Amino acid sequence: MPSSLTELSARETAARVAGNALAAEAVAAAFAERIAAVEPAVQAFAYFDRDRALAEALASPAGPLAGVTFGVKDVIDTADMPTGYGSAVYEGYQPAWDAPIVALTRQLGGVVLGKTVSTEFAMSSPGKTRNPHNPDHTPGGSSSGSCAAVAAGMVHVAFGTQTAGSILRPASYCGVVGYKPSFGTLNRAGIKPLSDSLDHLGVITRDVRDATFVTAALAERPAVAEGTINGPLRVGLFRTSRWASSEPATRAALDRTATAIEAAGGTVRELPVPDSFEGFFALFDAVMGWETPHTLAYERRGLGERISPITLGFIETLAKATRDQYDAALAVLKHRDAIVEELLDGCDVLITPAAPGEAPAGLGATGDPVFNKVWTLLHVPALSVPAGVGPGGLPVGVQVVGRIGDDARTLAAAAFVEDALKALRS
Amino acid sequence: MPSSLTELSARETAARVAGNALAAEAVAAAFAERIAAVEPAVQAFAYFDRDRALAEALASPAGPLAGVTFGVKDVIDTADMPTGYGSAVYEGYQPAWDAPIVALTRQLGGVVLGKTVSTEFAMSSPGKTRNPHNPDHTPGGSSSGSCAAVAAGMVHVAFGTQTAGSILRPASYCGVVGYKPSFGTLNRAGIKPLSDSLDHLGVITRDVRDATFVTAALAERPAVAEGTINGPLRVGLFRTSRWASSEPATRAALDRTATAIEAAGGTVRELPVPDSFEGFFALFDAVMGWETPHTLAYERRGLGERISPITLGFIETLAKATRDQYDAALAVLKHRDAIVEELLDGCDVLITPAAPGEAPAGLGATGDPVFNKVWTLLHVPALSVPAGVGPGGLPVGVQVVGRIGDDARTLAAAAFVEDALKALRS
Repeated sequence: MPSSLTELSARETAARVAGNALAAEAVAAAFAERIAAVEPAVQAFAYFDRDRALAEALASPAGPLAGVTFGVKDVIDTADMPTGYGSAVYEGYQPAWDAPIVALTRQLGGVVLGKTVSTEFAMSSPGKTRNPHNPDHTPGGSSSGSCAAVAAGMVHVAFGTQTAGSILRPASYCGVVGYKPSFGTLNRAGIKPLSDSLDHLGVITRDVRDATFVTAALAERPAVAEGTINGPLRVGLFRTSRWASSEPATRAALDRTATAIEAAGGTVRELPVPDSFEGFFALFDAVMGWETPHTLAYERRGLGERISPITLGFIETLAKATRDQYDAALAVLKHRDAIVEELLDGCDVLITPAAPGEAPAGLGATGDPVFNKVWTLLHVPALSVPAGVGPGGLPVGVQVVGRIGDDARTLAAAAFVEDALKALRS
Repeated sequence: MPSSLTELSARETAARVAGNALAAEAVAAAFAERIAAVEPAVQAFAYFDRDRALAEALASPAGPLAGVTFGVKDVIDTADMPTGYGSAVYEGYQPAWDAPIVALTRQLGGVVLGKTVSTEFAMSSPGKTRNPHNPDHTPGGSSSGSCAAVAAGMVHVAFGTQTAGSILRPASYCGVVGYKPSFGTLNRAGIKPLSDSLDHLGVITRDVRDATFVTAALAERPAVAEGTINGPLRVGLFRTSRWASSEPATRAALDRTATAIEAAGGTVRELPVPDSFEGFFALFDAVMGWETPHTLAYERRGLGERISPITLGFIETLAKATRDQYDAALAVLKHRDAIVEELLDGCDVLITPAAPGEAPAGLGATGDPVFNKVWTLLHVPALSVPAGVGPGGLPVGVQVVGRIGDDARTLAAAAFVEDALKALRS
């Protein structure tokens, strides 16, 4: 029995609220108390107004997400809370409407507690958030506040966005589950765009089953929660062409995960990294490199020095991509399904690093998305699942990757991996 | 020699401004005078402030679009002009930034004169705009003000958006060129979204060469303007499975176009309409039907009766689509390239109706996109080219359709068709 209302899972909370065993406003009040206690150290929120949050809870309708508390990354528009896109330039800006994901969350009974900190425009210039496990370390980014808020128990669920590695990397650093569904699964309208071909909306939760639960509701896809594995789970261990970027903490987490899967009755087979894999990094750079500087045309040219030097520098580095590289990349990516099928080589899912290692020290940078970019490019479902603690005492995740549109099986596999890791620890 | 500055083409204007033979502010002043004269009857603008427009012209930089005047559909965000999305609900709303297409237009020297009227959320509830050829008839929609403004000589170019038939149909009704480039050619960030899989940004111009000129600049694709036809132009005449919806005016326009093409040395071959073609309408309904009601979740559920009954009714009709229909449609549409290749059957382009006939009488509805939906669904480049006048004295266009990504050849073919039609008339 959890010692506090805030420790209940999202799905258990919703079940109790639906059964009139619990009131949404009592849940929200408990989370407000938790936020008051830990927010001064963690700094996960760009905007939190206790009275507004409790009023929202009191007025919230019945529904599958009743009583479940949400944090909304501050690149996602909200009609009743300012949306600053992580930038001093837009601080206090008030959009006219809720992004569809926010409107839908509220319609289904979910309670939005506040806006969580994003890096500037969901790129690389960090916000104020600290890693809840060690305030001298980055929480990662760009979904910094969302991952930190979930890790510190301030919300059940937070929305994140990922164009390169902005959900899975900070989830790994913060010891929570970060889930980037297949491209297009969650509606991304009303979100500050970076790259039409790469921008994904996803969720950060405490465990895989909560990610499954809320995504099935928000995608209106009950089948997402009904995935099954036929026979022993077949897992491919995939080191990528950037294995040299992985640190001992990540290597140990992968080893632990493989051991845990086998101990739980699954199979793990190391898959060869095709010579062509390294080429995907160039494709990623071509796509983001062409799209993002164009999508941020107003900020890049119109705002100039009002945006941070880190953001400007990042945009200018991206902007080296040429139109011909972009066109060539899109031509290859028309064959995403076949590419993914070949990489998975008959396995149910891959396991691969979620991040190079533990969260780096310092708050001036948010870490390297090297182990996330290709999977974002390929539009596959991917989760970061907590896989223990590194030598620095900080969490490390492992990434579970499935086929495009095969989110149900990928989530079921990730839950299996999560359970296996818990069994190994106990 | 044109009698007025406003009669120069966009490309001639840009050439003269570049050669210091003409000042951008003189061009803008001439258009402001034209607007003052005809706007009371046409009502194309949602927002026009003469002083602001002339100040923008005076401050506009050198560039390939220097001196070219633009109207921006009012579903496209602008940092210095209100953006009402065609809805009373959002009247006076002031976005924080320019959509990338607006920022880029200005960076390249283009001068934005004002915001042009859209139907509510670019759907079917009409705005105030009248058809410049007959004020008792609709200009079509949803890019109503953009097409009317170009037709009435109030701007060189206007931006339009098309999810079903919102560029080509009103262009046909107003006697101007409407060009929907291949999906993704022009950046659609900062535009009120309806359907992630269908929303296109395009341009409305007086002739095909102006459409080519501005798109090559705005897409940063010079090759778009360098399309050539090898040998005689091979045109397929394609009546679609909805030929019964075509009126005599449209049938005559297609006949005239076929005659003109052959007289100019091209070939026209009637292509069979495959039995499967009708199925694309169901796919369209599944995609827009799933995506649009979800994308408008805030407006649909949160604003209720504050939005127009026409819009609400349209959304509810769309919302009959099921998730399974949607998934099945997306699976088929992964093969867009092959589908298009088969439909074109070796031709350079197709000609097909752009609209059922002349602009319908009355201002309460904006006409039927029946001849546009499938081409939008397929992501192909498509233009409406003026093809004469119907029995009611109103313009009728013909639609020219090419292959995905083959905009250069499609534009060259459309220019050939336009020239051939002019030669036939003279």
